[in-house]
Amino acid sequence: MSPFPSSAPRTEQWRHIRLTRHDGVATVTLDRPGKLNALTFGAYADLRDLLAELSRERSVRALVLAGEGRGFCSGGDVDDIIGATLAMDTAQLLDFNRMTGQVVRALRECPFPVIAAVHGVAAGAGAVIALAADFRVADPTARFSFLFTKVGLSGGDMGAAYLLPRVVGLGHATRLLMLGEPVGAAEAERIGLISELTEEGQAQKAAADLARRLADGPALAHAQTKALLTAELDMPLAASVELDAATQALLMNGEDYAEFHAAFTEKRPPNWQGR
Amino acid sequence: MSPFPSSAPRTEQWRHIRLTRHDGVATVTLDRPGKLNALTFGAYADLRDLLAELSRERSVRALVLAGEGRGFCSGGDVDDIIGATLAMDTAQLLDFNRMTGQVVRALRECPFPVIAAVHGVAAGAGAVIALAADFRVADPTARFSFLFTKVGLSGGDMGAAYLLPRVVGLGHATRLLMLGEPVGAAEAERIGLISELTEEGQAQKAAADLARRLADGPALAHAQTKALLTAELDMPLAASVELDAATQALLMNGEDYAEFHAAFTEKRPPNWQGR
Amino acid sequence: MSPFPSSAPRTEQWRHIRLTRHDGVATVTLDRPGKLNALTFGAYADLRDLLAELSRERSVRALVLAGEGRGFCSGGDVDDIIGATLAMDTAQLLDFNRMTGQVVRALRECPFPVIAAVHGVAAGAGAVIALAADFRVADPTARFSFLFTKVGLSGGDMGAAYLLPRVVGLGHATRLLMLGEPVGAAEAERIGLISELTEEGQAQKAAADLARRLADGPALAHAQTKALLTAELDMPLAASVELDAATQALLMNGEDYAEFHAAFTEKRPPNWQGR
Repeated sequence: MSPFPSSAPRTEQWRHIRLTRHDGVATVTLDRPGKLNALTFGAYADLRDLLAELSRERSVRALVLAGEGRGFCSGGDVDDIIGATLAMDTAQLLDFNRMTGQVVRALRECPFPVIAAVHGVAAGAGAVIALAADFRVADPTARFSFLFTKVGLSGGDMGAAYLLPRVVGLGHATRLLMLGEPVGAAEAERIGLISELTEEGQAQKAAADLARRLADGPALAHAQTKALLTAELDMPLAASVELDAATQALLMNGEDYAEFHAAFTEKRPPNWQGR
Repeated sequence: MSPFPSSAPRTEQWRHIRLTRHDGVATVTLDRPGKLNALTFGAYADLRDLLAELSRERSVRALVLAGEGRGFCSGGDVDDIIGATLAMDTAQLLDFNRMTGQVVRALRECPFPVIAAVHGVAAGAGAVIALAADFRVADPTARFSFLFTKVGLSGGDMGAAYLLPRVVGLGHATRLLMLGEPVGAAEAERIGLISELTEEGQAQKAAADLARRLADGPALAHAQTKALLTAELDMPLAASVELDAATQALLMNGEDYAEFHAAFTEKRPPNWQGR
Repeated sequence: MSPFPSSAPRTEQWRHIRLTRHDGVATVTLDRPGKLNALTFGAYADLRDLLAELSRERSVRALVLAGEGRGFCSGGDVDDIIGATLAMDTAQLLDFNRMTGQVVRALRECPFPVIAAVHGVAAGAGAVIALAADFRVADPTARFSFLFTKVGLSGGDMGAAYLLPRVVGLGHATRLLMLGEPVGAAEAERIGLISELTEEGQAQKAAADLARRLADGPALAHAQTKALLTAELDMPLAASVELDAATQALLMNGEDYAEFHAAFTEKRPPNWQGR
């Protein structure tokens, strides 16, 4: 969460996901379209370490998460993951499940907004990764399935039993996690699971536009908004109000706040620095 | 919450509610139709002790709560309860109100999903009991009234001021608890208070079908999903993710997870054991 | 929060807001219509101290917050506040931001329901003040804008990152606070941000009617309902159930509960005392 460099080198190549960067916007694409972007051990580990690396840089101001091909992500691979976990001992199982949870924590705690561009299937871990994003930009083909009970596991995977009630309320969350049924785009919008519903085929374009807008704006203000939303879910009112006061006092010393006032006075658009 | 037997005998007969059991599904019927199933001291006490007993057995995998006659439950009986409490001293009043709260805690903490089948009136304590269930399966005649302020009491009865904002949001919850007005099925569905809206007269049938499906499925996975949803409302994100990881590691050692993989590989439906 | 008088005198005149009182209902009007009721340092300070004073009296049973002229409140004044804060040192900035947060805490913690009557613009601090009220009675011209990022600040201002997710869910709250876009009355109603949607021009009348009804009703029951809703957002289930039990035991010793029973028995409307 700090741009100060340590001895750790930057990763040259992410082998299990596709990363592109353009002027403050990073785009991570799950790129195994023949398998509906089913996640492998390597993909989880790459997501975890990539988010940690990006969180140490100041250059990323918004991140898009997308899936190549017919859908967003079908979740953990039945052969590569479910099969493999059946042969694991207790310590290995804990290591695996902690890793998947670390991906979700990293998505909530990284210092830039994350936009999931969802089309087609977002199932299992794919649904939770989209849930952990700040925005879910989805087209009408989007279908969220928290299908963990259908494989004999708890619906509370990777923080889903924490996050989903806070997004759609306890009633809907219980139904979705307990039954594991798919939720189409229309219902997802109705219950508050989707941030923006686009025309068919336009989710990634709309997500990229939103990321561009966020990256070109007052990025430090966006980062602090995200940090407070994440922290204050776990904080009482009095402490939240105090954290807000300290945060605003800090940002009122920042360049972007002064720039807003100058631009307003000069009747021109602000030239945001993200500082 | 454990199947290990103590010296306490099993209750032979519940005198204030009707209990039936069939192959993993328990059905509790409030059975005082001449009084719209108004609750008596005995009914609260039976619900409290029955839920504790069922929680110590492994045989119950889903529970249906229903009301006989024209409605679900009209709440505490005006004569038998309100009248009687007016003659109580402070310690007795606290005992009574703790008992009603224990029913709600038992509903949230019992190790099986609870499905309220709601038709007609669900008022006062009846509304909170339905609210504390995991699923509210309701028909178009359902009418929820958190009418506590209308009798001069706090809308925060039996955990309602905790649960309702987490189900429908703070704005709707404030309106419902402060004003005590009835909420019809259409509005209840719109704000997330209903899990499934059925045809008129079909709530109990649909609730029984859902209970059957849950009981025949991976019941340990369902039980853990419920436990995590209940616990993580009160937990921060990092701890929730850790609890999820431990829970999934546990269930990945379970029979149902292996059974899913075997069934998937053999292209047949899983034969769930609930273990 | 107590009617016991200390040595502090009652304020004779509030210079930065307009206060009227009528039979248990206080009405606070933001009254700078030429500036869309933009808030000044004096207005924030008056709101903070007025709410503290009213909380020490037993005479106020409901409070209406309204805006004079074309809208509810456009937030902190760009000239008087943003300009002035640019010249402040760190301690002064913290004092200012703590003061605005104290207004929100006072709105949530005062022992009577607060009804915001919203028409036209509710922007920035104006949107958060409406959000902190118990009821938002709005007409179709209402437009909520949490526009803090648009001036280079965090969307989590005055507790907004705490309150908004608990009212509309984390997904909508993230979108509203991060982007700062206006939310019209129709969307506000759909996502649970509005308590009651009125005909155009009728928000203040409807808010006054609701305040009258609340003030004439069992006001202690209303006050306790609000106190529990506020407290239990920050409490676990078991403690909430215990708090509810103690609160109901207390109110069952009160006059209004006995009055309800007498009125019910005598088939007449209750004559509420608010005690």
